Amino acid sequence: MTNFVPTPTVPAPDIVRCAYMEIVVTDLAKSREFYVDVLGLHVTEEDENTIYLRSLEEFIHHNLVLRQGPVAAVAAFAYRVKSPAEVDAAEAYYKELGCRTERRKNGFTKGIGDSVRVEDPLGFPYEFFYETEHVERLTQRYDLYSAGELVRLDHFNQVTPDVPRGRAYLEDLGFRVSEDIKDSNGVTYAAWMHRKQTVHDTALTGGNGPRMHHVAFATHEKHNIIQICDKMGALRISDRIERGPGRHGVSNAFYLYILDPDGHRIEIYTQDYYTGDPDNPTVTWDVHDNQRRDWWGNPVVPSWYTEASLVLDLDGNPQPVIERTDASEMAVTVGADGFSYTRKDETSSAAGTDAVGFKLGAQV
Amino acid sequence: MTNFVPTPTVPAPDIVRCAYMEIVVTDLAKSREFYVDVLGLHVTEEDENTIYLRSLEEFIHHNLVLRQGPVAAVAAFAYRVKSPAEVDAAEAYYKELGCRTERRKNGFTKGIGDSVRVEDPLGFPYEFFYETEHVERLTQRYDLYSAGELVRLDHFNQVTPDVPRGRAYLEDLGFRVSEDIKDSNGVTYAAWMHRKQTVHDTALTGGNGPRMHHVAFATHEKHNIIQICDKMGALRISDRIERGPGRHGVSNAFYLYILDPDGHRIEIYTQDYYTGDPDNPTVTWDVHDNQRRDWWGNPVVPSWYTEASLVLDLDGNPQPVIERTDASEMAVTVGADGFSYTRKDETSSAAGTDAVGFKLGAQV
Amino acid sequence: MTNFVPTPTVPAPDIVRCAYMEIVVTDLAKSREFYVDVLGLHVTEEDENTIYLRSLEEFIHHNLVLRQGPVAAVAAFAYRVKSPAEVDAAEAYYKELGCRTERRKNGFTKGIGDSVRVEDPLGFPYEFFYETEHVERLTQRYDLYSAGELVRLDHFNQVTPDVPRGRAYLEDLGFRVSEDIKDSNGVTYAAWMHRKQTVHDTALTGGNGPRMHHVAFATHEKHNIIQICDKMGALRISDRIERGPGRHGVSNAFYLYILDPDGHRIEIYTQDYYTGDPDNPTVTWDVHDNQRRDWWGNPVVPSWYTEASLVLDLDGNPQPVIERTDASEMAVTVGADGFSYTRKDETSSAAGTDAVGFKLGAQV
Amino acid sequence: MTNFVPTPTVPAPDIVRCAYMEIVVTDLAKSREFYVDVLGLHVTEEDENTIYLRSLEEFIHHNLVLRQGPVAAVAAFAYRVKSPAEVDAAEAYYKELGCRTERRKNGFTKGIGDSVRVEDPLGFPYEFFYETEHVERLTQRYDLYSAGELVRLDHFNQVTPDVPRGRAYLEDLGFRVSEDIKDSNGVTYAAWMHRKQTVHDTALTGGNGPRMHHVAFATHEKHNIIQICDKMGALRISDRIERGPGRHGVSNAFYLYILDPDGHRIEIYTQDYYTGDPDNPTVTWDVHDNQRRDWWGNPVVPSWYTEASLVLDLDGNPQPVIERTDASEMAVTVGADGFSYTRKDETSSAAGTDAVGFKLGAQV
Repeated sequence: MTNFVPTPTVPAPDIVRCAYMEIVVTDLAKSREFYVDVLGLHVTEEDENTIYLRSLEEFIHHNLVLRQGPVAAVAAFAYRVKSPAEVDAAEAYYKELGCRTERRKNGFTKGIGDSVRVEDPLGFPYEFFYETEHVERLTQRYDLYSAGELVRLDHFNQVTPDVPRGRAYLEDLGFRVSEDIKDSNGVTYAAWMHRKQTVHDTALTGGNGPRMHHVAFATHEKHNIIQICDKMGALRISDRIERGPGRHGVSNAFYLYILDPDGHRIEIYTQDYYTGDPDNPTVTWDVHDNQRRDWWGNPVVPSWYTEASLVLDLDGNPQPVIERTDASEMAVTVGADGFSYTRKDETSSAAGTDAVGFKLGAQV
Repeated sequence: MTNFVPTPTVPAPDIVRCAYMEIVVTDLAKSREFYVDVLGLHVTEEDENTIYLRSLEEFIHHNLVLRQGPVAAVAAFAYRVKSPAEVDAAEAYYKELGCRTERRKNGFTKGIGDSVRVEDPLGFPYEFFYETEHVERLTQRYDLYSAGELVRLDHFNQVTPDVPRGRAYLEDLGFRVSEDIKDSNGVTYAAWMHRKQTVHDTALTGGNGPRMHHVAFATHEKHNIIQICDKMGALRISDRIERGPGRHGVSNAFYLYILDPDGHRIEIYTQDYYTGDPDNPTVTWDVHDNQRRDWWGNPVVPSWYTEASLVLDLDGNPQPVIERTDASEMAVTVGADGFSYTRKDETSSAAGTDAVGFKLGAQV
Repeated sequence: MTNFVPTPTVPAPDIVRCAYMEIVVTDLAKSREFYVDVLGLHVTEEDENTIYLRSLEEFIHHNLVLRQGPVAAVAAFAYRVKSPAEVDAAEAYYKELGCRTERRKNGFTKGIGDSVRVEDPLGFPYEFFYETEHVERLTQRYDLYSAGELVRLDHFNQVTPDVPRGRAYLEDLGFRVSEDIKDSNGVTYAAWMHRKQTVHDTALTGGNGPRMHHVAFATHEKHNIIQICDKMGALRISDRIERGPGRHGVSNAFYLYILDPDGHRIEIYTQDYYTGDPDNPTVTWDVHDNQRRDWWGNPVVPSWYTEASLVLDLDGNPQPVIERTDASEMAVTVGADGFSYTRKDETSSAAGTDAVGFKLGAQV
Repeated sequence: MTNFVPTPTVPAPDIVRCAYMEIVVTDLAKSREFYVDVLGLHVTEEDENTIYLRSLEEFIHHNLVLRQGPVAAVAAFAYRVKSPAEVDAAEAYYKELGCRTERRKNGFTKGIGDSVRVEDPLGFPYEFFYETEHVERLTQRYDLYSAGELVRLDHFNQVTPDVPRGRAYLEDLGFRVSEDIKDSNGVTYAAWMHRKQTVHDTALTGGNGPRMHHVAFATHEKHNIIQICDKMGALRISDRIERGPGRHGVSNAFYLYILDPDGHRIEIYTQDYYTGDPDNPTVTWDVHDNQRRDWWGNPVVPSWYTEASLVLDLDGNPQPVIERTDASEMAVTVGADGFSYTRKDETSSAAGTDAVGFKLGAQV
């Protein structure tokens, strides 16, 4: 039975949006090639050990920090809050939760001011900040606009063993659920949660965790994503295209998953929908619905379910990974034991791979 | 050893382009729903047993004839020739080849005049015609333009056991090879052949044949193809999306393969390249190049290699299918016995599935 | 000197977003043809006198109400607020401002509950509501997705003589300014103001008012807008395309302005940027910058500056139109007396039409 | 009365397609910046005085030669012929016409072999060649693919006073007319003529000539053209965007006209239609049809009618420009004396600017 995180008595910090991720990479030059030369993120600043990158339409200092280190991992999931006072609120909130916190008036990364980092109840390194250096917003710098231009940081995705526990904790923190995946036994496999008016700022994927599943950047149009695939083909790194491109069922976004040189997973994402109304309808998908992860029924590759990046504690050591004990989405949907359908109401001869309407050929 | 088709002494007919395909479907109402309601092809004429369809920019009577019949199969691959006299030339050409031919002054299908049909040396029912009724070219009827609009018939694709034999026969007939897939042992797996100034009017895919692999329609842009997938998802027929969307290595076109209610395979295709110069360079792909069929290295589903439609003789009976004896592309590239690479020059530990750079995860 | 609207002592209502516009049309059948058959908006409900329309991704009852009436005009600019209590807040706020208000527990239009309408200090009929009937969100109904699909209501645009006065009033009401157009004499020509996290929910255009300049719907991609032009060409109503398509300087959105049968102006709009951060940088454009209204320097047609729709008071009578006394954007930028530049720093021989870098040919 | 060019008794050379244009520019560095840095054409070779450029999908040495010279002009419109023997045929053909010809076994430009240049009966410098150095076709070099990538040379456009005379001469030379613009008095204003299977390899625009109206490059999709506009905006050279983007009535292509530093006009063009059938229907437009030049009825700027580039004789001197004596398209359609319509059948109060359905506002 789920051991829920208690709800603090102090108010949750007022979070604006996911703002940046700090990741540790093992070969900074190789990572620079991937993020700058291949993906075209814009360098705000860089030194021997660190590169600060932003997307085209960003005006804060960075959306991604690449830091050279011994073990590939994620050092921080950073959220921007509404005012300087909300950093205090965040610190108080996590202190009441009994979490380890660290406050730095000058920030943990260049271009960011007063911040607090915490080891959150799920084991993730979360950061909250307001102060940041404004940099040139490149929105109309079409002279710099590449064919696969990344224009915004869209969201994080976190792997955690107990999704309902994580979801309740994040709802307390002020996130709202836009969509989720469940089964008829009441198991939750994943949940999408937002602060800004899109489908998510972060999502919880059920699995062994805490681990980072992916970080997502948005493009303007679908052809920009196709160009990224085409370019990776031209560079003969198509084996770094893990899944997609495709249309998500959940979120309705057009997507692509690719892998950086350390195996950190990046999603490229475009055109989800507005969620800003207080009664925005939550969409619940059946885990057996073959179109939930890919609207076209294209199969999810197993690595997408099993692989993810380690996350660090505040000392920079990898957090231990705890196994999920609930049913696994991969197990219940893929292969001989799984069960999926394309047309829910058609009678299936058996709860097996010969389910009517399931795209078997592609799954083999 | 290949038993080549002899080269006739009379001149080959001057072929303009692939013009239409006649297919037999087993449930005309279901097929109408697929081709008209889902794909949006335009009905030129129809009666109880037959529907004549064309693409948006076509001005001849039809590009596709659906005829109700007992066995799903292809009744004709029809080519337009340059003048009425070229129909005579076609008849003489095939007569010299010893092929069965049938000439009909009023055509085999509505809207088409004087035509000859032949059982060609590979066992395919080929038709040649010049005369046709001109119908409204809908090019600027943007009031009829659907989000996934099909604008041209692009090409046929035929399965035949002996690709070099078929290729030599089609070269004699005036086709030119734009691209092919080979291995270092001299085996040819497929060849793309054109009359009009695109990559192909027809292609030969090595396999058990004669069978029809697919017929392809062009869209204007890539997003039109994505819409077709999205719509099939909305209609809960995503299990009819067999492969793609993706970028072909061969032809460089953006593609999608879908299946009609009888399993006839339709390709949706856009943006290959100009091939009209006499010295247009032929591109040869290594069968082990993991990007030849999909530039992004996404795996080809087995059904795409194994399934195809029967073709009819001039009496309307299915042609017997002859097995390919050369190596199979699927066998040499997919699974534990296959060998593929993404980066040719990297050393692979073994000619097996652990080849460096091969996208294993997706292939499982 | 500007006679500013006083700031009320009661809190402003917490506005979520622009939600719908009610317009009076003089020939409902003609308007239906335009909005439903040409633009493809979805009918939620309709009767003899009224049609309730929504965009693809909307889940509230409607974004546009067409009501048959004797004089083409706008009956309401309706905003959704965050909770039922905020309707009370709105009523109190405008009462303190001395504005005429009308509260209807059952709403003014079908599908909308408890609402208040006001004659605001600028003379516009504003509505505030929370309660609404949820209807099917058609986001993934790609079977209904037209090539020029409108997916969201994006914003209103209002003509008012005194922009600084209107801006201060709307800032008090909780709107934030994303962009504006000024000159070096301190004249403000226009301002863009948002509640949701886009460039605007409404904008103020300096001119004779109160009048409605336009209402804007968003598409997913640029090609959707081009299709609307293409379709209007096919229907031989290209004379209803007033301006564009083009890229805005202000907002960076790709745009098109078209006119409905009564001359109500509709903008089709896509891809502005995220404005949700509290310190989102405000962009100020020089009125003489030739790329402010069209990033490509294409000229603004005079009608776009001069024509707009009347607005109604709460009795349904047109509000009198008051002349702008500040400089007119058209006068200072177009024609022999205007002055515009493409490259600010180039020396111009005179502040006239021979300004260096100004696209004269197109402006004739 | 038209003094037609006589039809030679020797066969016309078998032309494959328009292949390259050689233009003289007055500041090679500035032109390089425009064609290479802004437009992204690929440099095959360059030296102090000359730059050889090609589009992405080209495999012959170049599509455009920029040569430094004292007077901006066009030195050659070069066509590729089907075989080396066709160069002889071209030479014989023009000799019989009494035209000045010059044969160079090593070509006039680098990378091109045996060629003949002629001063054709209309005064244009035409070149015919077969031999060319094959260079890397960059089709799948998506690592080089810019957001506004030019992928093919599409066509030339020539200004000539007497269109019927020019048309008959080009038809003798083997070109076929795809579309034209006429009026009810029998005046021809323009004609589009092709050898390859697109709408044109060259077009004749009625006006003072011989002059070069424009040279056109194709992109893959419409958004590529929009990006070129956006980039020119970012570089603050939007005053070099002369007309468009828009949808042509004639050809149905999506288009843009821009001006290089010398005023040479470049069209960017995408998605016309297949014309390869021998009976491809010719489309004739009424000069008064307001959608013929722009399907959306956007007005043609006067400079587009009046400005064009000089062409050189074989000594490198500009050809004298002869005035058109037939009616001018601009005069009969623009301004107070012109007459245009959007809906042909509507009664117009007068054959003047108040024609029903004509987009007046935009034309001022």
